[in-house]
Amino acid sequence: MVNTIEWTPEGVVMIDQRVLPGEETFITCKNYEEVADAIRTMVIRGAPAIGCAAAMGVAIGALQASDENFDAEMETICSTLAGTRPTAVNLFWAIDRMQRLIAAKKAEGASLSEIREALTAEAEQVLAEDIEINKAMGRHGATLLPQGATVMTHCNAGALATGGYGTALGVIRAAVESGNPVAVLANETRPFLQGARLTVWELQQDEIPVTLLTDNMAGHVMKAGKVGAVVVGADRIAANGDVANKIGTYSVAVLAKENGVPFYVAAPISTLDLTLESGDLIPIEERAADEVTHLAGKAVAPVGTTVMNPAFDVTPNRYVTAIITEKGVARPPFVESLKALAKS
Amino acid sequence: MVNTIEWTPEGVVMIDQRVLPGEETFITCKNYEEVADAIRTMVIRGAPAIGCAAAMGVAIGALQASDENFDAEMETICSTLAGTRPTAVNLFWAIDRMQRLIAAKKAEGASLSEIREALTAEAEQVLAEDIEINKAMGRHGATLLPQGATVMTHCNAGALATGGYGTALGVIRAAVESGNPVAVLANETRPFLQGARLTVWELQQDEIPVTLLTDNMAGHVMKAGKVGAVVVGADRIAANGDVANKIGTYSVAVLAKENGVPFYVAAPISTLDLTLESGDLIPIEERAADEVTHLAGKAVAPVGTTVMNPAFDVTPNRYVTAIITEKGVARPPFVESLKALAKS
Repeated sequence: MVNTIEWTPEGVVMIDQRVLPGEETFITCKNYEEVADAIRTMVIRGAPAIGCAAAMGVAIGALQASDENFDAEMETICSTLAGTRPTAVNLFWAIDRMQRLIAAKKAEGASLSEIREALTAEAEQVLAEDIEINKAMGRHGATLLPQGATVMTHCNAGALATGGYGTALGVIRAAVESGNPVAVLANETRPFLQGARLTVWELQQDEIPVTLLTDNMAGHVMKAGKVGAVVVGADRIAANGDVANKIGTYSVAVLAKENGVPFYVAAPISTLDLTLESGDLIPIEERAADEVTHLAGKAVAPVGTTVMNPAFDVTPNRYVTAIITEKGVARPPFVESLKALAKS
Repeated sequence: MVNTIEWTPEGVVMIDQRVLPGEETFITCKNYEEVADAIRTMVIRGAPAIGCAAAMGVAIGALQASDENFDAEMETICSTLAGTRPTAVNLFWAIDRMQRLIAAKKAEGASLSEIREALTAEAEQVLAEDIEINKAMGRHGATLLPQGATVMTHCNAGALATGGYGTALGVIRAAVESGNPVAVLANETRPFLQGARLTVWELQQDEIPVTLLTDNMAGHVMKAGKVGAVVVGADRIAANGDVANKIGTYSVAVLAKENGVPFYVAAPISTLDLTLESGDLIPIEERAADEVTHLAGKAVAPVGTTVMNPAFDVTPNRYVTAIITEKGVARPPFVESLKALAKS
C-alpha cells in the first residue's frame, strides 16, 4: 500500500487521489498554500487524511513564517487551512490541536525554533496516531461482522482516506486479518467515484475480494439478501449520533434499515463534534457543477445544465446500528454512549 | 423534439441514444437484424420505444422474408427480436401483436403481400397509438401533481423512451401544458446516464426547468423536503402492482416512502404482465461490466474489476402510491385495480 501522505524534507508529499487508479502521481506541497489547495481540490480527501494534511500544513507554514510576524502569519495559515472544506470536523480538530501546542509551548517560554520543531513532530505524531487509532477501531469493529459476510461500503474510508489502514476499510482489513473471509461490495460513489477508483484499487492491492456496483444498485442487492452489513466512515458526528458522511450515505442507511441490514459507522473520536446537538447543524459543502456534468473530462449532460452537488449528507441516528471508534463501540442512545466514549 | 423512431422507405430510422446529447446521430436499420442490434445495444431504449422498434422489426423482416419460407423465417425474426432484452414486456407484447395479425390475416385468406402490407401499417399504428396513449396518460397523471411541485424522475421515461411525449415525462409535460409550473429533478441514472443525457436534454428542449443530480443525492433532497412527488416509468408491472423499472427505482421508492413523498408509476396497459403474480418472477437483465467500469470510453475502475450490472430492479407494490395508465389511475390494492383497468 502506498502512503497517503508523508512529511519529507522537500515538503508534504501526497498521492494524487484525483487521478487514481489510472495514474500513481505524487504531489509535493512546498508551502501551506499548496497544502490548502490540495485539500480544496481533493488531491487528498477523507476526514482523517484531511486532518493529517491540515496538521502538516500548519507545520510547514510555521517553518516558513517570519520571526517578526509569527503570530499573525500563523493565524492566516490556520484560517486558510480551515477555509478549505467545511464539513469534515477533523480539519478543525487538527488545526486546533496545533494551535493549542503553540500556546502550550509559548507558556513554557519556548523559542520560535523550538515551537517550529514541536509543530513538525506533532504533525508526524498526528499521522502516526491516526494509523494506530484505525487499527484499534478495526479490532473493535471486526467482531461485529458476521463470518464470511458480504459487507457494503460507500465512498472510500480506507487507507487513502486516513493516515493508513482506514476506518471502514480498517474494520474490513481487521476482520480479514482475524481470519474472517469477508467480501466487499463497493458503491462507486458519484460524482467523484471514490468507491470505483479508490476503494476497489485499495482492496485489490490487499487481495480482499471486492465487487463494484453503481450507487443505485445498493437497495436492489440488499433486498436480494446479499448484504450482511454496511460499514461506512464519517466526516462529522453530532452529539446525538447523527452522521455526516459522503453524499449517498443517508440513502444506503435507509435502505439498510428497510432490509434489516446492520449499518455501522467507523470513525475516530476526533470525528465527534459534541458541540453540535444534532446533524442538522452540520454545514454541508456544495461543490462545483462540473463534477456532475463531466466525467473523465467529457461532458455527459447538455451544456449549461443546472446541477446540485452537495458533497455530504446527514444520516439521522435512528438508522445507525453502532458507531465504531478506537475507544470502543457506541450503541444507541448515542447521546450517552458517545459522551462516555469521548471521556474514557 | 426529434422523432425517437420512424418508418421510412430506407428502413427504420432511430436517433442514436448512446451518443446523445453530445451528438444527434440517426441510424437507419435496413433489416430486422439491425433492428435487433439497435435494441440490444441501446441505440433505442425505454419499454414503449422498444415495443415500437420490435413491431417495425417484424414488419421490415416480413418485407424481406422469402415467399417460400415465410412462416419459418417469421418465426426466426420474431424469436431474434424477442431475444434482445428480457425485462421490458412491451417487446413481447408488440411481437405478439404482430404475430396475431399474421394469424388473423391468414385466417382471412390474405396473400403474403397483403400480410406484409398489413404488418407495415400495424407497426406504424403501434407508434401512432403509443403517442396517443402517452397523451391520455399525461392527462390522468397531471392532476396528481401538486401546483408548482418539484417532481423527481429516474432514468428517461420521456419522448425518447416512447413513440413520443413520454410516460413519466408525459405526465410532467401534461401538467405544464395545463398551466401547472412544475420543475423537475432528474436523477442521472448510472450506469447509462439516461437521466443526465436524455431527460435533461429533452426537458431543456421543452423549456421545462430541470436540475440534474446524481442518484445518491435523491434521498438527501427528499429529506430536505424539496420533492413534491416522484414519477417514473416501468418496464414491466406484475398483476399485484410490483414494478420492474430501471435500476435504482426501488431505492428511490423506499426513500420516497420514508420521507412521505408520493411515488407514481406511469406506464401504458401494454406494460402490465397479468400472467405474473408478483415482481419476483420478472427476469432481470444483467448487462456488461464495462458499462460500469468505463465512462465516455475511459476506465474509471482498475482493470479487471469484478462488477455487478443489473439493468433493472423490482419495486414492491407497497411503495407505489398509484399507477397511471392511459385508461386511468390504479390505486392499491393493485391486484384488483389493475385487472379492472386492463379489462375496461
